[in-house]
Amino acid sequence: MLPFFPRRFIPICAAGGGQYDARMEARFCTHCGGPLRLGVPEGDNRERHICDACRVVHYQNPKIVTGCIPAWEDQVLLCRRAIEPRRGLWTVPAGFMENGETTYAGAARETLEEANARVEIQGLYLTVNLPHIDQVYMLFRARLLDLDFSPGEESLEVALFRESDLPWGRLAFATVELVLRRYFEDRRAGRFPVRMADIVRDPDQPRGYRVVSFQDA
Amino acid sequence: MLPFFPRRFIPICAAGGGQYDARMEARFCTHCGGPLRLGVPEGDNRERHICDACRVVHYQNPKIVTGCIPAWEDQVLLCRRAIEPRRGLWTVPAGFMENGETTYAGAARETLEEANARVEIQGLYLTVNLPHIDQVYMLFRARLLDLDFSPGEESLEVALFRESDLPWGRLAFATVELVLRRYFEDRRAGRFPVRMADIVRDPDQPRGYRVVSFQDA
Repeated sequence: MLPFFPRRFIPICAAGGGQYDARMEARFCTHCGGPLRLGVPEGDNRERHICDACRVVHYQNPKIVTGCIPAWEDQVLLCRRAIEPRRGLWTVPAGFMENGETTYAGAARETLEEANARVEIQGLYLTVNLPHIDQVYMLFRARLLDLDFSPGEESLEVALFRESDLPWGRLAFATVELVLRRYFEDRRAGRFPVRMADIVRDPDQPRGYRVVSFQDA
Repeated sequence: MLPFFPRRFIPICAAGGGQYDARMEARFCTHCGGPLRLGVPEGDNRERHICDACRVVHYQNPKIVTGCIPAWEDQVLLCRRAIEPRRGLWTVPAGFMENGETTYAGAARETLEEANARVEIQGLYLTVNLPHIDQVYMLFRARLLDLDFSPGEESLEVALFRESDLPWGRLAFATVELVLRRYFEDRRAGRFPVRMADIVRDPDQPRGYRVVSFQDA
């Protein structure tokens, strides 16, 4: 029996820290090594990767990216990325949530790994749906506990920025721009409601995407 | 070369609607079919499944369970489960978020699938971390749009309950009890702050778990 031939194939990011891309076509069963086929399992309503040899269905689901905005007085801590994608651009500390942890513990861990910085996580702030890449960002407000920080392995540089100094044109991701604009607006208003937004791919927009606010208390 | 032999093996749920368990030991590479080994990839700090043949690292990450509390005046819509686990017990409509959708669209989809009910999703209400099973629940407040509902394939029964009629002793999951208790408390107080909690396994507790509130505005 020939192995299943993929209908689409999305190359994975081979660089250090590259996350296995769940959308990469699965061809072999992780359980028995048999070939997978695309089909709708009984009682289901969408196509999955099915192994006919051992009858395992391989589901693929969105991933959580967890991160925070580490604040020190009127400044926020940003990291300049040492890895692809968007190497050289600035971001808030964030990364894929790991098994066995909570969302906010993951946000604190990412901050320690990327900026060698310790934070107290204060609360959920912004959830962003990115349905075109199967990700959900969960971004927390955080308080930097001291000024002892330095670039982690995935960062070229780590620095504090006031709103007026922020490298707006050199931010790594749409989510980062969205959360920082909201954050400084809310800081001026003196309140931080929990919000939810979608970033939707839209080739008609100048930047190729648009922001849809679902919950905006 | 012998295939990698699993150190632990968690049987998957073979019944209809059973989700592939990400914690099930992966033995073969989905990409090339080669054997996987456990090891810490370069630049990483934890064990992953690695394919030495094609150099793909297979990451495993938590899954999002999205759902809602469909309200009609002072009543909420619950479903009695037709599937394992917890067949015969009551739950709010909820299930694994799918690729390509937003968290709240997933909550509305689950409500349609499990209760043939249409809802307007009103806002994020409670996020629950379950680190021992690598899940994050995202539960939304919702308004039932009409009284035309009926059991979907995964439900034995669907019904509206007032707080005083609720089948408290026959709820399917700790998250369901947690969200319903909070919901009726908040309803009395006339406000629904966005909250986050952890459900942590604890064999010393009568029910085997305890609830830790992280964000409780």
